[in-house]
Amino acid sequence: MPLSKIKVIAFDADDTLWVNETFFRKAEEEFCELLEDFMPKEEANKLLFDVEMKNLPLYGYGIKPFTLSLIEAAITISNGSTTVDLIQKLIEKGKQMLQEPIELIDGIDVTLDVLSKKYRLVMATKGDLLDQERKLINSGLEKYFHHIEIVSDKTEKQYSKLVKHLDINVEEFLMVGNSLKSDVLPVLNIGAHAFHIPFHTTWVHEMVEEEVRHPNFKSFTKASQLLDYL
Amino acid sequence: MPLSKIKVIAFDADDTLWVNETFFRKAEEEFCELLEDFMPKEEANKLLFDVEMKNLPLYGYGIKPFTLSLIEAAITISNGSTTVDLIQKLIEKGKQMLQEPIELIDGIDVTLDVLSKKYRLVMATKGDLLDQERKLINSGLEKYFHHIEIVSDKTEKQYSKLVKHLDINVEEFLMVGNSLKSDVLPVLNIGAHAFHIPFHTTWVHEMVEEEVRHPNFKSFTKASQLLDYL
Repeated sequence: MPLSKIKVIAFDADDTLWVNETFFRKAEEEFCELLEDFMPKEEANKLLFDVEMKNLPLYGYGIKPFTLSLIEAAITISNGSTTVDLIQKLIEKGKQMLQEPIELIDGIDVTLDVLSKKYRLVMATKGDLLDQERKLINSGLEKYFHHIEIVSDKTEKQYSKLVKHLDINVEEFLMVGNSLKSDVLPVLNIGAHAFHIPFHTTWVHEMVEEEVRHPNFKSFTKASQLLDYL
Repeated sequence: MPLSKIKVIAFDADDTLWVNETFFRKAEEEFCELLEDFMPKEEANKLLFDVEMKNLPLYGYGIKPFTLSLIEAAITISNGSTTVDLIQKLIEKGKQMLQEPIELIDGIDVTLDVLSKKYRLVMATKGDLLDQERKLINSGLEKYFHHIEIVSDKTEKQYSKLVKHLDINVEEFLMVGNSLKSDVLPVLNIGAHAFHIPFHTTWVHEMVEEEVRHPNFKSFTKASQLLDYL
């Protein structure tokens, strides 16, 4: 389907507009170091991931769920013998992550500036609303977006609801993001367009093996390359 | 302004559609009992509230922020000498709260059924999206609502954004909720309508002293009374 039909472009937030995954990787590493006396680092990291996956349906995505999972994993890894002091450190770690300064993805500002003059732009994220609003305001990118769309998960059903809510046809919708699993595959499956701009770090939970070949799909290495097509 | 102009009615969720505050009060009580050895109950409850208020700008509203504040308050109250076992209990407490069965507010189902045939209904909440979506689905009330609007806080600015987003004029908007502070005062201040249906328990943070007198305001004791005016 032609790109000329597109009316609304939705941008994923974390690792599409600004750096995010890097902070989680750093926090995981620090967590494993703190618990090294109880368990080898790699094993601790795997156990933390398992705790996160178990909690995902109940907690959802974001830094607060991550903090709660850090505490729970620390208790499990230490077999209940971790210190209250370490738990305090994990709470502080979470608060620090919620206050990290924004580091924009290269070229995103200029790209959004150009696109916002031709299309309605929305930010579509499965993160935590308060946290994502704060980042959007601090990023200086707020002026380019019509509004924020928060979804509880990026599934075909949620994207169909989003398109309906935006009051457009599915072929008028383009999603741009760094995750094939969340930003690309479900979007292509409902008949909309999806552009992929990978970030150098991907959370294991977001990884997919398959190679995407679809008429409504394109992949880029830099945000500014979007302007070659839009 | 006449009620005949109203096009969209937004309902608050917690304690307007279903019971919520009761679970927090119960959790606070259990928390204070768990820490009774370190601090008298009333004092512990006050300290917990202070921790919640300090964390509110960073964490926002909901059960996950509450759980993190419970852990932080337990560490403070016990002066770092609480047990890991107790912290584990607090995490479990939070998970249990996230899975409480839904208890509908008396008469809300019938009221929404009637109103949904005449107005566009939306659910407007400052809670956590995943949690509120789960409750809406489990409540059986989902069929009455056009969509969910999640706001990071219920301020005049957020209500103005919401009305703009709904693509209506401010006098076409009516908010229904149990909190004068969140559901009534900011709504009246932007020129929209607000109906108040108090719940028997109100969180200290949501309490206001003033009596409301405003042409766009009405107060009810039961949800079904809405039908006398709409």
